[in-house]
Amino acid sequence: MKKTPKAIEKILAAIAGSKTLCVTGHIRPDGDCIGSQLALALAIREHGKDVVCWNQDPVPDKLRFLDRTGILCTPEKGRSFDCVIAIDAASYERLGTVCEFIQDRKLLINIDHHTSNTRFGDLNWISSRQPSSGELAFRLIKEARWPITPKIANCLFTAISTDTGSFQYPTTLPSTYHTAAELVHHGADLSTVCREVYQSHPLSRVRLQQHLYNHFKLTQSNRIAYCWLRMRDYNRAGAHPNESEGLIDYIRDIEPVVVACIFEEVAPNQIRISLRSKDHSVNVSDIALQFGGGGHKAAAGARIEGSPNEIQRKVLKAIRAALK
Amino acid sequence: MKKTPKAIEKILAAIAGSKTLCVTGHIRPDGDCIGSQLALALAIREHGKDVVCWNQDPVPDKLRFLDRTGILCTPEKGRSFDCVIAIDAASYERLGTVCEFIQDRKLLINIDHHTSNTRFGDLNWISSRQPSSGELAFRLIKEARWPITPKIANCLFTAISTDTGSFQYPTTLPSTYHTAAELVHHGADLSTVCREVYQSHPLSRVRLQQHLYNHFKLTQSNRIAYCWLRMRDYNRAGAHPNESEGLIDYIRDIEPVVVACIFEEVAPNQIRISLRSKDHSVNVSDIALQFGGGGHKAAAGARIEGSPNEIQRKVLKAIRAALK
Repeated sequence: MKKTPKAIEKILAAIAGSKTLCVTGHIRPDGDCIGSQLALALAIREHGKDVVCWNQDPVPDKLRFLDRTGILCTPEKGRSFDCVIAIDAASYERLGTVCEFIQDRKLLINIDHHTSNTRFGDLNWISSRQPSSGELAFRLIKEARWPITPKIANCLFTAISTDTGSFQYPTTLPSTYHTAAELVHHGADLSTVCREVYQSHPLSRVRLQQHLYNHFKLTQSNRIAYCWLRMRDYNRAGAHPNESEGLIDYIRDIEPVVVACIFEEVAPNQIRISLRSKDHSVNVSDIALQFGGGGHKAAAGARIEGSPNEIQRKVLKAIRAALK
Repeated sequence: MKKTPKAIEKILAAIAGSKTLCVTGHIRPDGDCIGSQLALALAIREHGKDVVCWNQDPVPDKLRFLDRTGILCTPEKGRSFDCVIAIDAASYERLGTVCEFIQDRKLLINIDHHTSNTRFGDLNWISSRQPSSGELAFRLIKEARWPITPKIANCLFTAISTDTGSFQYPTTLPSTYHTAAELVHHGADLSTVCREVYQSHPLSRVRLQQHLYNHFKLTQSNRIAYCWLRMRDYNRAGAHPNESEGLIDYIRDIEPVVVACIFEEVAPNQIRISLRSKDHSVNVSDIALQFGGGGHKAAAGARIEGSPNEIQRKVLKAIRAALK
């Protein structure tokens, strides 16, 4: 292994010197967030520390298998911490309501892989070259020489797998595959991860997929695909708004499509747009920026106030301009 | 690297002693077949050999990016070979019409990872522990110390990625991830593989997906999902029957579903069934066997003659019995 970076040394020293710790992540947590948090919490707990694991929002259904004993929970009042570790959160605000409950702390550690990270911690380890925070958690645990139990391996494997689109995204590094190999060697249970994470859509979600296939539109010689998800569509499907995650991939993956857009009605006259690009010459974060949002070149989003018709007209106009 | 197995030594000696070679694969070739064939053919060609690469069926659209120069083609009469290499074909019959054109040969080499392989070659290297034939081709090329060009890396990465369901299937080994790492290091272009293989469904295929979402049925407390694909459904979608590959995953991935079944009308009163199981206690190859087919525990199929209604009744009855 390469020489331990200073940031990791400092983080490990801070953890060693702490008795009470909180591991927290971002709002609407995804596989990378949940997996990294749980792996760190489990590894640190092994050393007789008092560790809580807090998120504003609950664990998504398909990730519950990682936390059968309920380590992850919503924050509670009146706790003080020697050390708070935020992982996978690009900014302090991304911790959501957890912020209120971690005021009484000695140290804030910020571990993340997002380029846009605001370096909000007292100690910051931001490695934007890494495709997932799970790989940072793995590195930390390895450097500390903490044992990688099958449970920890499962959490880290899920984190890395989900944030690389199952090892498909071009951001995936050779070291990502080596890490996956090591985690499988340490007992990551591919059969369970595969079934729970990738092969298990609730019926409500399946109804949203059906809605998508029946209502998507193609325009600009099939180079733009878009679809609306209204509040009534969620109601009809019996689905929760957080079940829309990843739906956009189904229309992005249509061959001639270059840009895909989902318009989601969050509240009356409040629309969330999600954008995906399949062509590196079309940067959707530039489009999202025009509407006060942001993201990456290939995936971005924004929240816009206004009438649905007007928003659709403006957004499609901006996409058409980007395609030229 | 471990000691070179005898089978590999013999195969490399046979290739070294041959001037004219044919690399062939199975009917309805998939990513593992095409990728392994092309990688071997490209690697052997580098050594001044006369190599053809033959398949009965054409390269599927989404794999065409691997063979821009048209190395893979349909067989032609009147050729003789010092050596024919079959890769990823479980039996001689699986070579289809290629069999007629490779009669005039000195040696037949059989490289495969299917447990059911019939050892039909003069030299056989069957390693059923490996999740893909791509990993066997990689091992062979490594043992031979042939250079792994970016083109070869792309072919092998695609072979391995597609046959492991993008590194998700429980058959995936730690060594599979290490191999993927090495291939990315050698220039496998994740961005292209990802876009062409996983993010590029033609509109005809998308219409089949729409058909599926609108017509699938659930029975046995949602534990069985099934759907019909009639000839008229293909016609309406403007789709070719080979575009149905992988469609079954969409209904297998419904949460409560244990067994998924697709009934495909191949010709009037000739039905092909595909079966998938998500529970290791339900072995769908046993079900397929009852109808003269076969496969693996989690994925199997059969061709059945008879009236659609009667076939559906019998197959669903067999699935219900297996679920008990």
